[in-house]
Amino acid sequence: MAKSEGKGFASIRIIGSGLIGTSIGLALAARGVKVEMLDRDRLAQNLAQDLMATSKSDNPEVILFAVPASAISELFVAEYKLNPESKFIDIASVKTKPQVEISKFSGAASRFLATHPMAGREVGGATSARADLFEGRSWIYCPEYSDGAKVDPDVVEAALWLITSLGASPISMNASDHDSAVALVSHLPQIVSSLLAGQLSNGKASDLELAGAGLRDTTRIAASDRALWQEIIASNSSQILPLLINLQNDLASLISKIDDPEEVGAMIAKGNQGRALIPGKHGGKAREYSLLPVVIEDKPGQLAALFDECAKAKVNVEDLTIEHSPGQFTGLITLALSANDADVLQKHLEKSGWNVHSPR
Amino acid sequence: MAKSEGKGFASIRIIGSGLIGTSIGLALAARGVKVEMLDRDRLAQNLAQDLMATSKSDNPEVILFAVPASAISELFVAEYKLNPESKFIDIASVKTKPQVEISKFSGAASRFLATHPMAGREVGGATSARADLFEGRSWIYCPEYSDGAKVDPDVVEAALWLITSLGASPISMNASDHDSAVALVSHLPQIVSSLLAGQLSNGKASDLELAGAGLRDTTRIAASDRALWQEIIASNSSQILPLLINLQNDLASLISKIDDPEEVGAMIAKGNQGRALIPGKHGGKAREYSLLPVVIEDKPGQLAALFDECAKAKVNVEDLTIEHSPGQFTGLITLALSANDADVLQKHLEKSGWNVHSPR
Repeated sequence: MAKSEGKGFASIRIIGSGLIGTSIGLALAARGVKVEMLDRDRLAQNLAQDLMATSKSDNPEVILFAVPASAISELFVAEYKLNPESKFIDIASVKTKPQVEISKFSGAASRFLATHPMAGREVGGATSARADLFEGRSWIYCPEYSDGAKVDPDVVEAALWLITSLGASPISMNASDHDSAVALVSHLPQIVSSLLAGQLSNGKASDLELAGAGLRDTTRIAASDRALWQEIIASNSSQILPLLINLQNDLASLISKIDDPEEVGAMIAKGNQGRALIPGKHGGKAREYSLLPVVIEDKPGQLAALFDECAKAKVNVEDLTIEHSPGQFTGLITLALSANDADVLQKHLEKSGWNVHSPR
Repeated sequence: MAKSEGKGFASIRIIGSGLIGTSIGLALAARGVKVEMLDRDRLAQNLAQDLMATSKSDNPEVILFAVPASAISELFVAEYKLNPESKFIDIASVKTKPQVEISKFSGAASRFLATHPMAGREVGGATSARADLFEGRSWIYCPEYSDGAKVDPDVVEAALWLITSLGASPISMNASDHDSAVALVSHLPQIVSSLLAGQLSNGKASDLELAGAGLRDTTRIAASDRALWQEIIASNSSQILPLLINLQNDLASLISKIDDPEEVGAMIAKGNQGRALIPGKHGGKAREYSLLPVVIEDKPGQLAALFDECAKAKVNVEDLTIEHSPGQFTGLITLALSANDADVLQKHLEKSGWNVHSPR
């Protein structure tokens, strides 16, 4: 892991016990910071606090807003009154809007730093949180307001420590450049994925039984939360609109030339080129697990038996997926383990008569 | 593993030594079938044949075309002349076109069965082939022509044996229904992913450094082979075109209402619903289950202990996810069960001192 930058702190209040807030809390708690989790939803708050396994502080050094952009300025006013010495940070997906609203509080605005971790999952909530969510990710921060006013250095230092302690790479950017970039790399893909998944209701159920990995991957983020994305798109529509119009033009052109193989090929080739522009390293490293496929009989008790074998082999399963479909007598379990554990487990399962394949 | 259906055979000639052809060859060779691999590309052919580690037969019982749809009928004519007693099977991604072309050979057409295994990898070629590529996958076959003419039963029996021996599930379908289904679940996602990736060349390099998993997943298949997809889309454009027009209408509607949060929300919600229609782990089926979060110590043996408790409580775990990371002292297991089983298990685990939360 990279060395931490900035200046550490001992206590934080995180308002919002969703995926990102809880994941930040988990990672800081593991580094010895006292973490207080708050949420309007008491069940979510209690679960998140329980996961921290740490004590709270009444006067937290840092207050982090893990709530939608539209809720930030109101919370800031309330929390600033109670804790004017604290350092305030947000992590919303759009940065111009909270900056503009908070810049109105001229005496207090220098205590607020707008930031955005480039990490997330299509599943929300504390139950999906993970302490390593930010490792290898970029994390934008905006140390200047659009009028040139600067955020206090001690606030920036605290944020830099938080970002780098969590394994992310801090990138300084102004709010407008940020919002233009995420319109292309985040908001447009979300809209395209949602529109594509929206077409599936036109199909027959039997059509969808033929769905493969391509459809699953392209529509994964279509499962994202409506309220969250309704808010993000509304907050950034001026940046998103020109991108949608470009897409509309390309789609119209394809439709008019669908029977010309050369034109269709050129469209695929342009996609190849665009795909190749995505950097491999910056946006997030792939977790370095080996995947071990095990074919099991699709019946109760098989998973328990498989995990008994894992315990006997003294290996640690990091994750797994289960694929099975109606009418099928076999299920495919893919276990994610360290490369070494995958080798150990493969040999162990083979000896015990399981239908296990080579790690990949 | 499922029991094999159909009737076995002892020898096959596979024309086309790409990913699918070679993977089928590997799986059959492992089951004692004599496999002959052919390819226009001699290097590919020799590599594929070497991988088989089996002898060939001069009069193969089955001849399998693992080539693009447009090449099948010509190959069929040539091979049928030499081996009129053989059984002919193809595995191309589009089924109406080869059926229509071969139906012109009225004396011979009953010897040809159109099939399509719903499996693949982004990487092509014999070197990426795996004998287990088809395990747990659907495999379409079309035992009737559009005029009602039937494929000979011995040909169908051989194909069923091939499909089920490789661990796949045979699904009988007519060619037109197949092509309509794959237009929706495979060809439309490919086009959308290519169009989306094509937009990325409009961005700055620094924008793309913010790319996250959402962009990577939605554009993964945009890296697919131009020649392969140019051919697939040309072969199935009549089924694809209406889907593109629906998409165009939805996109135009969104553009005109981009500043209306309710309309944007409805678009996201329609995507949620479409995504939920996809069967499988992350699709609709899982949503019928209650999700029970259990916080465990992150150490080997805890999963086995948890499944022992499930067995004691006599509940059936349908799926589970594991969330934890190396720097975290606790792990979160989310079990998917029927609503009733989730209640039973929660009470059981609470009594036994586990850190279990309410089902959701």
